Amino acid sequence: VSEIRSIEWVPRQPGAPLPGSLRILDQTLLPERLVYRDIIRPEEVADAIRRLAVRGAPLLGVAAAYALVVAAQQAQQAGADTADAVRRAAALIRGTRPTAVNLFHGVDRILHILEHSSGSDDLALEIWKEADRLHREDREACEAIGRHGADLLPPGSRVLTHCNTGILATAGRGTALGAVYEAFRRHGKLHVFADETRPLWQGARLTAWELQQAGIPVTVLCDNAAAFLMASGQVDCIMVGADRIAANGDTANKVGTLALAIAARRYGLPFYVLAPVSTLDPSLPDGSGIEIEYRAAEEIVRPWGRNIAPQNVMVYAPAFDVTPAELITAIVTDRGIIRPPYERNIAAACGSSGSQRRATP
Amino acid sequence: VSEIRSIEWVPRQPGAPLPGSLRILDQTLLPERLVYRDIIRPEEVADAIRRLAVRGAPLLGVAAAYALVVAAQQAQQAGADTADAVRRAAALIRGTRPTAVNLFHGVDRILHILEHSSGSDDLALEIWKEADRLHREDREACEAIGRHGADLLPPGSRVLTHCNTGILATAGRGTALGAVYEAFRRHGKLHVFADETRPLWQGARLTAWELQQAGIPVTVLCDNAAAFLMASGQVDCIMVGADRIAANGDTANKVGTLALAIAARRYGLPFYVLAPVSTLDPSLPDGSGIEIEYRAAEEIVRPWGRNIAPQNVMVYAPAFDVTPAELITAIVTDRGIIRPPYERNIAAACGSSGSQRRATP
Repeated sequence: VSEIRSIEWVPRQPGAPLPGSLRILDQTLLPERLVYRDIIRPEEVADAIRRLAVRGAPLLGVAAAYALVVAAQQAQQAGADTADAVRRAAALIRGTRPTAVNLFHGVDRILHILEHSSGSDDLALEIWKEADRLHREDREACEAIGRHGADLLPPGSRVLTHCNTGILATAGRGTALGAVYEAFRRHGKLHVFADETRPLWQGARLTAWELQQAGIPVTVLCDNAAAFLMASGQVDCIMVGADRIAANGDTANKVGTLALAIAARRYGLPFYVLAPVSTLDPSLPDGSGIEIEYRAAEEIVRPWGRNIAPQNVMVYAPAFDVTPAELITAIVTDRGIIRPPYERNIAAACGSSGSQRRATP
Repeated sequence: VSEIRSIEWVPRQPGAPLPGSLRILDQTLLPERLVYRDIIRPEEVADAIRRLAVRGAPLLGVAAAYALVVAAQQAQQAGADTADAVRRAAALIRGTRPTAVNLFHGVDRILHILEHSSGSDDLALEIWKEADRLHREDREACEAIGRHGADLLPPGSRVLTHCNTGILATAGRGTALGAVYEAFRRHGKLHVFADETRPLWQGARLTAWELQQAGIPVTVLCDNAAAFLMASGQVDCIMVGADRIAANGDTANKVGTLALAIAARRYGLPFYVLAPVSTLDPSLPDGSGIEIEYRAAEEIVRPWGRNIAPQNVMVYAPAFDVTPAELITAIVTDRGIIRPPYERNIAAACGSSGSQRRATP
């Protein structure tokens, strides 16, 4: 697994990061084909984000930052106004997907550099450095989340998860799957149940694939079978990622998460959300303020080009849902495990090393 | 819609029912193709049941009975022992799918005829008459369920349903959808949300299709989005069918039903099960005794021949789950609406016109 990289900056020449290209693993083709794409234009990043070739909240943050690097590099090569090109690319990237706060966070980190730059010729390099720093931070955040999360997974744990929160969702080892990888490294006694995650099957296509690569036992199930799996005593806990967490702990995550949390409560199972602090959005008091992305009907009713519903049928297609904080046992972050009362403890986590968003590079 | 028939006996000549063939609508090809198949051998019925060309608990009961008609007819034409052929076909049909009690009920009804037959030359005809009677009874049961169920759907109702419980699941207008058809006939103000129902998409393929044919507004959603739909206040009640209902009201139905019932409880929404009394199985004290069918992994991980999961991944594939009675607001049958306490009221419903299983033809 260690050789699989969801995202990577590839310099054209050794010795200097620029010029270079952004290499992404096209996740739409997994598990059938492992295809990397080298990207040199911000529009290509936006396109990759929209069609979910790159997805996963933390990875979106890193991809967003690199999108501005390629914009800066392109402008510099063309002798155009670099700052202007970066700002236009920032607007483009912001318009791709609304729910994951990490994407906006990644853009903001780069814009902050822009605003505090001396206007030197090295602007593209300065931007690359910040993107690279964000990239490394995300990798380290995954390691920390994995360590804290693995403490919740004693030997023999049977973990139910949803969507993909691993190597393919982050720049590191993952959030919920980061905990799985670390627990498996510690004791090797673990079983993962992976919801297939309709409509785009990130659980079946991506989670099952990357766990299988790592030799971790994994069973795929339809999303609608998870409650019966819990009812029949085959699950010890639920671990999911997050796209945005409000100040009170309400959590937006891939659609289907809410149903799992409700069922987990009924069966007395701990329900854990694992995410870097960059996923916390203390600007929103609660989940009602989180913008939910709705996807095209075709993603649901035309899988692989086959009509699974009559023509022109109406479709309800939220990409995310919001799980109320009261159903969440704990939020596992790179800064430790946050438990209720969330309002106070999330504020403390955001403030614990200064501002959540780094004030200076 | 009225011309769509999920099942039909087609005499070869006008005037006499036998010889004839069993015509079924092959539901695996909907909504893309409307194909009927004429069947003259019991093995073909068994195959159609196994691959879900014919499905839906009440319809399985009628198909099972007709399977024994074709067995009797075939034996009679070949000069073989008719009773023996029927018994062998009964064993074959019993072995196809374990969960829906109606299938066993249909077989039992015919075997009862066999045991009480005088051994005349008209055995095949006697059997056909009983199958035809069962067929008409199911149609009438649907009408009665529809009337009782429609009383629960005032104008403007937004009904969430799962799988398919309509014309394609019964020999009549359906159970849960029977109520929808009748309510729409009464006031025309209704909206249906149809869970797609993985892995075989009976909700998207069949429910959406037959409601669209009838001009009833329908919205398809992924199963995992139902909880968020409820949370956002877009649903007034949930109506589902049943494959088997134990003496205490515990209900086996298409996998995913349990998750809906749990979420409905959280959001204070009524959760109705609609089924003919032939779906009641008072021989089982509770749901723990209901045998759950597990399907082949391929149905989940190879839709339309595409791999949505890595090769050889483990798959959890229950076709049904069991919803505990305490989550069920009411059970709507052809003999009226059964409310808690279920133990007493189900027993009363089963006994209210003699035995549940008719003692004499």
